[in-house]
Amino acid sequence: MANQSPIPVVVNGAGGKMGREVIKAVAGAPDMTLLGAIDLNPELLNKDAGEVAGCGPLEVPITNQFEPMLAMAAQEKVLGVMVDFTHPKTVYDSVRSAIAYGVRPVVGTTGLSVEQIQDLAEFAEKASTGCLIIPNFSIGMVLLQQAAIQASKYFDHVEIIELHHNQKADAPSGTAIQTAQMLAEMGKSFNPPSVAEEEKLAGARGSVANEGIRIHSVRLPGLIAHQEVMFGAPGQIYTLRHDTSDRACYMPGVLLSIRKVTQLKSLVYGLEKIL
Amino acid sequence: MANQSPIPVVVNGAGGKMGREVIKAVAGAPDMTLLGAIDLNPELLNKDAGEVAGCGPLEVPITNQFEPMLAMAAQEKVLGVMVDFTHPKTVYDSVRSAIAYGVRPVVGTTGLSVEQIQDLAEFAEKASTGCLIIPNFSIGMVLLQQAAIQASKYFDHVEIIELHHNQKADAPSGTAIQTAQMLAEMGKSFNPPSVAEEEKLAGARGSVANEGIRIHSVRLPGLIAHQEVMFGAPGQIYTLRHDTSDRACYMPGVLLSIRKVTQLKSLVYGLEKIL
Amino acid sequence: MANQSPIPVVVNGAGGKMGREVIKAVAGAPDMTLLGAIDLNPELLNKDAGEVAGCGPLEVPITNQFEPMLAMAAQEKVLGVMVDFTHPKTVYDSVRSAIAYGVRPVVGTTGLSVEQIQDLAEFAEKASTGCLIIPNFSIGMVLLQQAAIQASKYFDHVEIIELHHNQKADAPSGTAIQTAQMLAEMGKSFNPPSVAEEEKLAGARGSVANEGIRIHSVRLPGLIAHQEVMFGAPGQIYTLRHDTSDRACYMPGVLLSIRKVTQLKSLVYGLEKIL
Amino acid sequence: MANQSPIPVVVNGAGGKMGREVIKAVAGAPDMTLLGAIDLNPELLNKDAGEVAGCGPLEVPITNQFEPMLAMAAQEKVLGVMVDFTHPKTVYDSVRSAIAYGVRPVVGTTGLSVEQIQDLAEFAEKASTGCLIIPNFSIGMVLLQQAAIQASKYFDHVEIIELHHNQKADAPSGTAIQTAQMLAEMGKSFNPPSVAEEEKLAGARGSVANEGIRIHSVRLPGLIAHQEVMFGAPGQIYTLRHDTSDRACYMPGVLLSIRKVTQLKSLVYGLEKIL
Repeated sequence: MANQSPIPVVVNGAGGKMGREVIKAVAGAPDMTLLGAIDLNPELLNKDAGEVAGCGPLEVPITNQFEPMLAMAAQEKVLGVMVDFTHPKTVYDSVRSAIAYGVRPVVGTTGLSVEQIQDLAEFAEKASTGCLIIPNFSIGMVLLQQAAIQASKYFDHVEIIELHHNQKADAPSGTAIQTAQMLAEMGKSFNPPSVAEEEKLAGARGSVANEGIRIHSVRLPGLIAHQEVMFGAPGQIYTLRHDTSDRACYMPGVLLSIRKVTQLKSLVYGLEKIL
Repeated sequence: MANQSPIPVVVNGAGGKMGREVIKAVAGAPDMTLLGAIDLNPELLNKDAGEVAGCGPLEVPITNQFEPMLAMAAQEKVLGVMVDFTHPKTVYDSVRSAIAYGVRPVVGTTGLSVEQIQDLAEFAEKASTGCLIIPNFSIGMVLLQQAAIQASKYFDHVEIIELHHNQKADAPSGTAIQTAQMLAEMGKSFNPPSVAEEEKLAGARGSVANEGIRIHSVRLPGLIAHQEVMFGAPGQIYTLRHDTSDRACYMPGVLLSIRKVTQLKSLVYGLEKIL
Repeated sequence: MANQSPIPVVVNGAGGKMGREVIKAVAGAPDMTLLGAIDLNPELLNKDAGEVAGCGPLEVPITNQFEPMLAMAAQEKVLGVMVDFTHPKTVYDSVRSAIAYGVRPVVGTTGLSVEQIQDLAEFAEKASTGCLIIPNFSIGMVLLQQAAIQASKYFDHVEIIELHHNQKADAPSGTAIQTAQMLAEMGKSFNPPSVAEEEKLAGARGSVANEGIRIHSVRLPGLIAHQEVMFGAPGQIYTLRHDTSDRACYMPGVLLSIRKVTQLKSLVYGLEKIL
Repeated sequence: MANQSPIPVVVNGAGGKMGREVIKAVAGAPDMTLLGAIDLNPELLNKDAGEVAGCGPLEVPITNQFEPMLAMAAQEKVLGVMVDFTHPKTVYDSVRSAIAYGVRPVVGTTGLSVEQIQDLAEFAEKASTGCLIIPNFSIGMVLLQQAAIQASKYFDHVEIIELHHNQKADAPSGTAIQTAQMLAEMGKSFNPPSVAEEEKLAGARGSVANEGIRIHSVRLPGLIAHQEVMFGAPGQIYTLRHDTSDRACYMPGVLLSIRKVTQLKSLVYGLEKIL
C-alpha cells in the first residue's frame, strides 16, 4: 500500500459529533487524506477542521461551499469519497450531487426513504459510481447480528436483553428490534412453550417481538448501550453481547466503508454487505 | 473441636431429594453423626440411609417410627437435632413433637402458616429449646439479599433480572419477588423516571414490583436458576449475581443451621438471622 | 418427511455416559429408530437399552456382538448409521468395519491419530461411504468459534476467559487453546501493546497463547464449563460466551451428524463442516 | 431539612477534573451552596467556577487566595466544608490550615503518609473538628468490598477478575489488590486445592495475592474500569461486580462525605466508616 496515493476524503457535517470523530479517524488513517470539511454552522466557518475535531491543526479550513468542494474532490487522481453525517432533509440532495460529480458517498445520515434509496441506487448504477448507505457503522453490532443469524438456525429458543441509560425513552431499542427482525426472517418460530406460563406480575416475561422472540429492556443510570442475545438449548447457553461506550466505536466501520466504496460501481446498503 | 462429642442428627424425610443431600452432608461433617433416618416410603424401610443417599453404607437403617427415634435422640448426651424436609401437612406436628422431646428442629419444609410459626415460637420459648425455620438454605442467596439491602440505601435505581429454565411456569420467581420486597421495606421508592418512557412493545420494560422495582424474567432451556440485582447511578453499575447449579448449594446452610440451633433457646426464622 | 423411513441407528458404547444420552436422543427423534445397542460391559448384556438409558423400554436388548449388528444394519433399506462413543484403542477397527459393511459411522470417540484418520478417509472415499469424525459435538461452541473467527478479522484485541469447576486439573482448557489456535490461523498478531505493561503480581495478565492471544483460567467449585471470548476496540466490547451445564447439550450435534452422514460419500472431520 | 441553612462548601483544586465534577455536584445539591473555588492555574483566575465546570454561571469566581477563603468559610453560621482534590505535596498543609480555621476537610487527594494522617488525626481531635480522608469515593466499590468481606466468611473459594482499558500499565489494579487484602484480613486461607493443577501455559491461572486469592487482569480497548469478585461453593456461584464508566460515580460519595463531616469531631479514614 506504501506506493498508493491516499484516498481523498470530504466530510459533510464536519462540526457535528460524528463528523468530528470522522475527521479524527481520517487524520489518523495512513491511507487517507482529509481533502475538505463542510459545515453550515457559521461559527465554524474557516476554522481548522482538525482543531474543531480536537486532533490538532490539519490545515483544512471548514467551508460552507458544498458544490465547489465536490468539484475539487472530483479532480483528484484518486477517487474522492464524501462521508455524510448531516440531516434527513438534505442528505438526498447531497448524495445525488456527489454521485453526479463522481465522488463516492458514504452515508451515515438516517432518514432516507425506501423510494429515495431506490432512486439513488438507480442513479449510482447508471453512473457506475460506488455509494454506501450504512444505518449502523458498529462493526461489533453487525458481527453480533450475523452470528445471531447463524445461531438461530440451530437454536429454537432465544431472548434479547438490551440495557441502556435511563435517559432513553423508547423500549425496546431500535437495534434490538432490528436484531429480532433479522432472526424472524429465518422463517421459523422461536420459543415454543413447554409449560403454561403464568405472569404473576404483568410484563415479567418481557415483550414479544416477531416470531415469539422476547426482548427485555433494562434502563439504569450508569448504563451506556448494551445488547445481549441469549440462545438456549438443553444443557447449554450461547450468549452474544455488545457493549458500546464511545462514538469512537463507529470509526472502524467508517474507515472500512471509505476503503470499500472506492471499489464499488453501484449502491450498497448495510455494513454487513461489505464485511 | 477435637475433643467434643459430635452433634447427633436425625433426618426426617430421609428418602427425598433434599433428605438424601442432607444425609451425605452430615456424613461428611466431622462434628456431626447421623443418628437416625426417617421416611414413610415403604420401599425404603430398613434400607441403609447412606446407600439410599449414594454415599456408601452408614449403618443407619431407614425407619418409619418417628416418636421412638425422637426418644432416642433425646437420650444423647449432646443435644440432638432433627432436620425436617417432609410435607406441609405433617411438618407442624413433627416440629412440635421434636421440641417436646427436647430435640432441636431445623426445618426446611415449606407451608407452615404464620399462626403455626407463632405457636411453635411460643412453645419453643417455654421449653427453652432452639428451633430454626429456614425458607431458603442458600447462603449465597441470603448474602446477595443482604448486600442488596445495603446497596439500596445508596442507590435509587435498581432492576432485577432472574433467569430460569423454561420448565418454570411462574414469573417472576418467588425469590426475585422476595428480594424486591426486602428492598421495598427500606422505606423509599426506586427508579424515579427521568424521561417519559414509551414501550413500543408491551412488556419490554419488565414487571413492576413493590416501590417501582423492575423485575425481568428470562426463560430458556439450558438455564438453571440465576438472579441478578443491578443497581445504577451516574457513572456506575453495581451488580450482585447468584447462580445455582445443584442442590448441594443448600448444604452449607443446613450444616450451619444444625450447629447454630444447638446454641439457641427459642425459635428463629430465616437464615439471615444466624449468619 | 412423514412418508420417509426413519434412519436406523446403532449405538456402540451404549452403556457409557454419552451412549446413554445418545439412546435417549435417538429414541426421541421422530426421523430415527434405534436399531441396536452394543456394549461390552457384561452387567448390561441383554438389558433393555432404553431402560439402561433411563427413557423407558425400547425393546432393544444390549448386545456384545459387534459384527452381527453391523450386518443387520447393512440390510436395512435405509442407510444405517453407527454412533461410536467407545475407547481410543478400539475405535479405529470399529469404524473401519462399519464402513466395510456400508454402515455410516458418526464418531465421538477421541484418540484417533492423524494417520488413522487419513487412512479411514481413503477407505471411506473408495467405498463412497459417509463418515463423520467429530471431536466436539457442541453446536453452541462451534458457533462461538466460527463467530470468533469472523470477529477476528475486524478486531485486533482479544482475550479469552474460561471458567471451570475446581476439579479440572489442566489450564487453560483444551477448548480454549483450540479457540486461540483457530484465531491465530487468521494470519495476524493480536493485542499489540499500547503501554509498557507491568505485572505487579506474576501471572496477573494470564497466559499468552498463539499470536499474542491471552487466556485466563478461573477454577471454582460451583462452576461447570464456560468459555468467554472478549474482543475490544476503542469504544466497544464484543463478547461471545458459551455455558455448558449438561451432557444433553451435545445431542443436537449428534442428531445433526446422524442426518448428515447419510448424505455424505466420504469422511468429514469437525462439526463446523456440516453446519 | 427545608428550614436548615445549606452547607457552605469551598472546593480546593476547582479547575481539575475531579474539582469540576465536585462543583457541578455541589451546585446541584439542594442542601449545599458553593461558597468558594480555589485553583492556582493562572488561566482560571477570576473565571466563574460554574462555567469552568460546565454547569452554567454560579457567581463564584475562582481565586488563588487560599487563607482568605478559609477565613470566609469560618465565618459562616453553618460549619463550612473544604473539599480537597489538589496535589500530594500541598495537601497536608491545606488540610492542617482548614482544621485550624474550623473548616471541615473532605480529602480526596492521595499521597498523605501514615505519619501525616496520624498527625492530622491528633490535630483534628484536639480541635474537635471533623475531617474525612477518603482514598476511594466510589460508594459502589466500597459496597462491593464490604459485601465481599461478608461473603468471605462463608465461602472458601474466591477469584477476582478486573478488567480495564489497555492504556492501564499496571496489573492487577490497585483496587483489586486492596480487595484481596481486605479478604485476606479475615484470617483464613482461600482456594484450598482439590486437584494437582497443571498450567499448560504459564500464567493461565492468574496471579496469587494474599492468602491464595487469585486475581486475573484483562486489558482491552473498549473496557473502562470493572471489577468482579467471584465466590464459589458446590452448586453455586456468588458474583459481585462493579462497573465504572464516568467520574460522576464518585459524586454521591463526595456529597455524603460533605454531609457527614459536619457531624464529626475527629478524623475518619475511608468511606466505609461513614456508610
